[in-house]
Amino acid sequence: MMPPVITLLTDFGTADGYVGEIKGALLSEIPGATIVDISHDIPAHDVELGRLTVARYWRRFPHGTVHIAVVDPGVGSARAALAIASAGRYLIGPDNGLLSPALLMGDSRAVELSVPPHTSPTFHGRDVFAPAAAQLAQGTDVDALGTLATDPIIRRTPEPRRDGDGQLIGEVIAIDHFGNAITNLIGMRGARLFVSGRDIALRRTYAELDAGEPGAVVGSTGLIEIVVREGRAVDVLSLARGAKVSLR
Amino acid sequence: MMPPVITLLTDFGTADGYVGEIKGALLSEIPGATIVDISHDIPAHDVELGRLTVARYWRRFPHGTVHIAVVDPGVGSARAALAIASAGRYLIGPDNGLLSPALLMGDSRAVELSVPPHTSPTFHGRDVFAPAAAQLAQGTDVDALGTLATDPIIRRTPEPRRDGDGQLIGEVIAIDHFGNAITNLIGMRGARLFVSGRDIALRRTYAELDAGEPGAVVGSTGLIEIVVREGRAVDVLSLARGAKVSLR
Amino acid sequence: MMPPVITLLTDFGTADGYVGEIKGALLSEIPGATIVDISHDIPAHDVELGRLTVARYWRRFPHGTVHIAVVDPGVGSARAALAIASAGRYLIGPDNGLLSPALLMGDSRAVELSVPPHTSPTFHGRDVFAPAAAQLAQGTDVDALGTLATDPIIRRTPEPRRDGDGQLIGEVIAIDHFGNAITNLIGMRGARLFVSGRDIALRRTYAELDAGEPGAVVGSTGLIEIVVREGRAVDVLSLARGAKVSLR
Repeated sequence: MMPPVITLLTDFGTADGYVGEIKGALLSEIPGATIVDISHDIPAHDVELGRLTVARYWRRFPHGTVHIAVVDPGVGSARAALAIASAGRYLIGPDNGLLSPALLMGDSRAVELSVPPHTSPTFHGRDVFAPAAAQLAQGTDVDALGTLATDPIIRRTPEPRRDGDGQLIGEVIAIDHFGNAITNLIGMRGARLFVSGRDIALRRTYAELDAGEPGAVVGSTGLIEIVVREGRAVDVLSLARGAKVSLR
Repeated sequence: MMPPVITLLTDFGTADGYVGEIKGALLSEIPGATIVDISHDIPAHDVELGRLTVARYWRRFPHGTVHIAVVDPGVGSARAALAIASAGRYLIGPDNGLLSPALLMGDSRAVELSVPPHTSPTFHGRDVFAPAAAQLAQGTDVDALGTLATDPIIRRTPEPRRDGDGQLIGEVIAIDHFGNAITNLIGMRGARLFVSGRDIALRRTYAELDAGEPGAVVGSTGLIEIVVREGRAVDVLSLARGAKVSLR
Repeated sequence: MMPPVITLLTDFGTADGYVGEIKGALLSEIPGATIVDISHDIPAHDVELGRLTVARYWRRFPHGTVHIAVVDPGVGSARAALAIASAGRYLIGPDNGLLSPALLMGDSRAVELSVPPHTSPTFHGRDVFAPAAAQLAQGTDVDALGTLATDPIIRRTPEPRRDGDGQLIGEVIAIDHFGNAITNLIGMRGARLFVSGRDIALRRTYAELDAGEPGAVVGSTGLIEIVVREGRAVDVLSLARGAKVSLR
């Protein structure tokens, strides 16, 4: 039998050893587990960016994978902790919208984890999420971990809207590591974009641009990204999350 | 039999490939080993912060785990290299206090590693520590790796002291990734802290604070941490390691 | 049989989830694979630094290891994608010089990967390189993955040259995480270096220097590195890649 796969996404960084503690707890409870780092560099408390990242990877992993995701400014408050079974994978984390991509699937099932006594109120990653992950990885049914979550928090990517002229108005929903600005607009052949007072053409690849030239491409999830070849679009075009982008 | 678990803590960063070389050396000597990254982002040469991080994770891992930890400004000097057996785990690294948490256990046993000839004087991680880890992971007794270390360097967290008024004076011993200031003071119900000219109450969780409000909580190791909800205490209160914090 | 080892080097960072997608794709296709992070912190688009890092680690891993390396400013252009068998290991990545260290071995064999239809033009790491790695890891011969690459791009470390006075003139080829400046000069006993108007002696180890003193040591690959004990040579001596260093 293959060893269970458990992934970790946090905003903890690694230097303080919090992630190390979680890994130790997991390997102590599940000898031989395959622990996969997704990222520990999510910007601190940025649930929205964490959600977009979870959306990218969670279904790429094999059935049975347990994804732990912790971007959790509300740790220790009344916010619930969730375990979710969805599309053949499991997800564990705070009930703050971070795990929405899995909750939006038709077959998803979510429970509110019970918080064991003597739990650190500041470190649910180690004391609540890791033990629940160990149970799921070893075959415990998600329903056995808590009571049905009846109204978990859902975050959604904002939808573009249509203005009076029939133009589609979207926005920048994330800035990636390369300074590309990812929008909520779906790519379509021949489209032109207006952003930061610039008129920008949709290209098939970066390679159709000159060095330093802004353009747009359809990214690997199907959304339009504003890019600058060999540069950072976010700087060249002074973009930030929420910046308006119109398409026609 | 479970594959051996070997963890890595360094201040090397990853981009230069030094960590990659160590991982390759380990997997070449121990096929199937489980290599676990703790962190490669310890601030360069910061043995003290490395020690606090080692203290957090080393005993969370299963018995038999081999922990390699390298924050080693004295590499190539006369400083010894240690292998330690303690509490059922093994630790390998420089004799500069980094591994003190394991040396302070009653049952610990430490040897000075012999340094093989043709060793790079600048890269003991690859040429001394990784081969020793491979031997321990494969069952060699720690005593076989060198001669008994009779006086290894021990670093300790400074103790709070009591001033003339009976007030306990502690200090900030670390700043974590979230900008929380971790002190050497043990939490107690109803305590109040004075720090940077501010009077701060001890709360059970961040959630009892308003956004931007400073407070204190008992962290996951039992020590008081000074925090700002949705902010960085270290910036809001102009704190640094060594800053005095009094408790009453 | 040991599970296959697959390493990852990218300039993607981790926060966006691109690396997570690749890991999910690999584990879905090769259950039980050992995935090893080398680095995701190569500076964006810095093929040259990536090449120097690949040179460090690729042969340290066991025979049969598959190394994926992606620093790929030309993704989606006409640049080829390579799979290489060399010295008993496999390497996969863009044909831009990044994989030169493996191409320079006498027994290397390289093919141009065919790019499957419906491939994201911006994310070959997930859609081209990971599937090819899965095939190699599972025993497919490299020749079966594409057509022979007849003229792959080779990058080489610049050679030092000799000036009129018989002095060897080298240069800084990389700055490492500690601010050490790595040169293209081979170490030799008793050498003296001239750099940034300073006359610097070659030492055996950092420990022969005083704190803050510049010096040179032979690094772990045999090249001379300019260092400052407990400091950053790159800052103290105002060095950058390409800075001239003369040896006599």
